[in-house]
Amino acid sequence: MSLGPTELRSILTFTVNLTRRAGTIILEGSQAIQSASFIDEKKNSADLVTEYDIAVENLVLTEIKNAYPSFQFIGEETYASGVRAALTDDPTFCVDPIDGTTNFVHGFPFCCISLGLIYQKRVVLGVVYNPFLDYLYTAIESQGSYLTRGSGQPMKLPLAAPKPLPSLSKALIDVEWGSDRATPVIESKCNAYLRLVADPAIVEHGQMAHAIRTTGSGAINFCLVAQGAIDVCWEIGCWPWDVCAAIVIIQEAGGSVTSRSLLASERPHVDPFTLTPEVLMGREFLVVRAIQATRDETNREAQLRLSKGFYETVGNTSLMLRG
Amino acid sequence: MSLGPTELRSILTFTVNLTRRAGTIILEGSQAIQSASFIDEKKNSADLVTEYDIAVENLVLTEIKNAYPSFQFIGEETYASGVRAALTDDPTFCVDPIDGTTNFVHGFPFCCISLGLIYQKRVVLGVVYNPFLDYLYTAIESQGSYLTRGSGQPMKLPLAAPKPLPSLSKALIDVEWGSDRATPVIESKCNAYLRLVADPAIVEHGQMAHAIRTTGSGAINFCLVAQGAIDVCWEIGCWPWDVCAAIVIIQEAGGSVTSRSLLASERPHVDPFTLTPEVLMGREFLVVRAIQATRDETNREAQLRLSKGFYETVGNTSLMLRG
Repeated sequence: MSLGPTELRSILTFTVNLTRRAGTIILEGSQAIQSASFIDEKKNSADLVTEYDIAVENLVLTEIKNAYPSFQFIGEETYASGVRAALTDDPTFCVDPIDGTTNFVHGFPFCCISLGLIYQKRVVLGVVYNPFLDYLYTAIESQGSYLTRGSGQPMKLPLAAPKPLPSLSKALIDVEWGSDRATPVIESKCNAYLRLVADPAIVEHGQMAHAIRTTGSGAINFCLVAQGAIDVCWEIGCWPWDVCAAIVIIQEAGGSVTSRSLLASERPHVDPFTLTPEVLMGREFLVVRAIQATRDETNREAQLRLSKGFYETVGNTSLMLRG
Repeated sequence: MSLGPTELRSILTFTVNLTRRAGTIILEGSQAIQSASFIDEKKNSADLVTEYDIAVENLVLTEIKNAYPSFQFIGEETYASGVRAALTDDPTFCVDPIDGTTNFVHGFPFCCISLGLIYQKRVVLGVVYNPFLDYLYTAIESQGSYLTRGSGQPMKLPLAAPKPLPSLSKALIDVEWGSDRATPVIESKCNAYLRLVADPAIVEHGQMAHAIRTTGSGAINFCLVAQGAIDVCWEIGCWPWDVCAAIVIIQEAGGSVTSRSLLASERPHVDPFTLTPEVLMGREFLVVRAIQATRDETNREAQLRLSKGFYETVGNTSLMLRG
């Protein structure tokens, strides 16, 4: 089968409606959990999977099977139950029913459903919907990405023309602590934080970043980079369904997505910003917003320089990739 | 003059209208800055004060002088210009025109105007308005605190009945990196982070907190605690106008506000949750949400236990209080 621009626009309409329905369940679920007098120990842990997570995934899976019976499906629950299908050329929906589950439990309003479509091993369509803020992010490959706030009109991303980003010292950077609290992970992460915020006169590799944010949702972080509200975002330990939809949203907004493994590749023909299936499954991403070109540097060159500088700053990422 | 419940409700109406007008300027300003092709070095620094900051404060100051000519006024600009008036018993508006200026510059949607009223040295009224999300938080002493989302009805805070909070390991905690990057500050803060997230089996005083957030706005953090979306929030280096309004919002939502100096007091008659003017000016606050009482512990006892545990965890706060 073939998916052209017309088919993709039709799939987008379907996907947007589905994520809005899912959003209603997510909001109800968050309110129900906050109103409950007791949450059991397991559900309240850092890698929480609630009954609402499963309910939303079931809704999405059922509706997709009805509307697009030939499409493949990758999601947290299916993956966890052992169906680790290799990525084919077939259209494949990649779903995170609730991204930011800790936020979901606490009612912290950065939580979303993320629904991406992979076709011929590229992400060609993505929808990220945050029902708490009623923010809808959408993208189709080669057709741009958009943010729709409430009942407003879709606004093209980034929201303003790209600005320069001369160094990490000017950057608003999102970094997450994650739920893995093993010693080497925590030590590496603490060193990474220290170097990002410290004055280079004091700490080797210090970058004196403008500020650090921690929102607790990878998909929302990516979308905030696409929007231009965050300059750099570093996600470690996430799964393909966490970020699949957001990848095309950031790419269509002129942002870059790379990973340590892509950048470390010494093959000269490898584009550091073209995600192979291995990278998509690789659980580690660095995202940089669109940057205004200068006389000396294109957007891509600036993103590459900042990405390399970031990895030099934070040191050995592989230490933090576990489980 | 005397301010009873009726006068305070009238002042609240005035204050809400004023903050909504200010919100329009804040939104316009943020969009203008993001659309500008160049931001000068000084304006883009971590302790940014923009022309919009001054424009909003001027609007607020002018309107307050017209409506309440006898009221005092404390704000960033007036304070900075040398009018460090001692707090009197007179009604005194305490204003932060734009809280979260780094977010304001980047368009990160956690940014607000904060307008509090101090009377007889207590915060008796507070309004915090985030124009990016159209979230309005309000409180009058003894009359509860509320969140109004968009054109919806005011919702009493906290949004759900208080839940237990047995330990910091169950807590969603907001901690800010701040803009002070001097060595002892950064080292203390890094140690504080490490202890909050680390497994106690590995790191002494490790608390294994559920998760850490960093939003970049003290006033919004306090309001998120009032709402119940964050469990604990620690603010260091903030000024009274940053948090004045939010203090009554959190107190009216059953949350607690204390400081290291209050807790360290050995005077047995000092209530660790009653803010003296010295504490209000003290630039360091620990906020804990309302907690469900158990057979063994009241809300206040639980908040006191968690506050003491928090300070034992993070170590010497005074190192981080500079400038």
